[in-house]
Amino acid sequence: MPSSLEDRLALQELSARYARAVDRRDYEAFVALFASDGVLCGPGYEMKAHGEIDKGIRLIAQYESTQHCVHNQLVDVRGDAASGETYCVARHIYTRDGEKRKLDMGVRYQDQYRREDGAWRFVRRELVLDWTQDLPLVG
Amino acid sequence: MPSSLEDRLALQELSARYARAVDRRDYEAFVALFASDGVLCGPGYEMKAHGEIDKGIRLIAQYESTQHCVHNQLVDVRGDAASGETYCVARHIYTRDGEKRKLDMGVRYQDQYRREDGAWRFVRRELVLDWTQDLPLVG
Amino acid sequence: MPSSLEDRLALQELSARYARAVDRRDYEAFVALFASDGVLCGPGYEMKAHGEIDKGIRLIAQYESTQHCVHNQLVDVRGDAASGETYCVARHIYTRDGEKRKLDMGVRYQDQYRREDGAWRFVRRELVLDWTQDLPLVG
Repeated sequence: MPSSLEDRLALQELSARYARAVDRRDYEAFVALFASDGVLCGPGYEMKAHGEIDKGIRLIAQYESTQHCVHNQLVDVRGDAASGETYCVARHIYTRDGEKRKLDMGVRYQDQYRREDGAWRFVRRELVLDWTQDLPLVG
Repeated sequence: MPSSLEDRLALQELSARYARAVDRRDYEAFVALFASDGVLCGPGYEMKAHGEIDKGIRLIAQYESTQHCVHNQLVDVRGDAASGETYCVARHIYTRDGEKRKLDMGVRYQDQYRREDGAWRFVRRELVLDWTQDLPLVG
Repeated sequence: MPSSLEDRLALQELSARYARAVDRRDYEAFVALFASDGVLCGPGYEMKAHGEIDKGIRLIAQYESTQHCVHNQLVDVRGDAASGETYCVARHIYTRDGEKRKLDMGVRYQDQYRREDGAWRFVRRELVLDWTQDLPLVG
């Protein structure tokens, strides 16, 4: 097990900070989790560097609230670089035709990290979407 | 990163023990996770100290079973005190009009912890409820 | 807290590797997570040793995709042996009568582990099934 405990816990916390920033709509904190040349991409979109990430993540505000629950994480650390996979179920609350609904997304983030000035940041986070489920809150 | 690895893992485990105690209906173990003057509160309720917590948590028995899945946790440790936020999706199985149903609650616990005699305990756990979803088990 | 941080993180990762291997249909990696005399069992089935585990886990291919999200884990480590409980929500995507559906299983794995040649492996993983929910992906 070559990577240190400290690094592995720090990378767990990086994904928790990602979730907290997006769920709180704290865009400034969100962008700061990425390297200045970082990339956030997924099916049909790619945001490059802080300007595009800041603009893109604000689309989350179309939902009334979100909760990004982070699960399994496996990382491979090599000095100041690391890569890994992080499971997430992202929940999105919204209203359609007067009905409250929840859109769930089953995600496996494909991550690349870099340590800069002692802090781990995302160099690239690619969202692989395994499934979605969209149901009313009460049925 | 000022807080020790040991403390951060111990606080993860404290939330896992909370989940296990409530899901097993082990009220004695549940209450022991709180400081003697600890508080457990949420929308519309506040339980103070072991007596009220013991009485209040027993209401969980109205459900046939529960599963409290704990996710993202971010903590700030300062000596023998700490605070943090812990994500949870709490699942509650019950029967209504002969139909088995599951009530899911999306929770962000706002936690305050204290180390006493070497063990971390809850001083205050406030349940912030972000969403609920109540659907049949089969549909 | 007798068990080392290293062991506790390694056992977290073992469950994450279990999830990744089954979700990727990497049967070779899956089987290698078990001791050669390991057992994987649940309601109505018991697979003993690598041959039976390899044969049994391939039944997962009946689903179009799966996502095993691992949560709370509490372990007790005694030298090169350990036991523990691991929460999981296992999601199974499939099609019935032309309708895409998701079968969720609320699981508490009852685990026994052994360290062999420096790596933790499952000696026994028993799946306790607390609830299932089977709903369409869109409703």
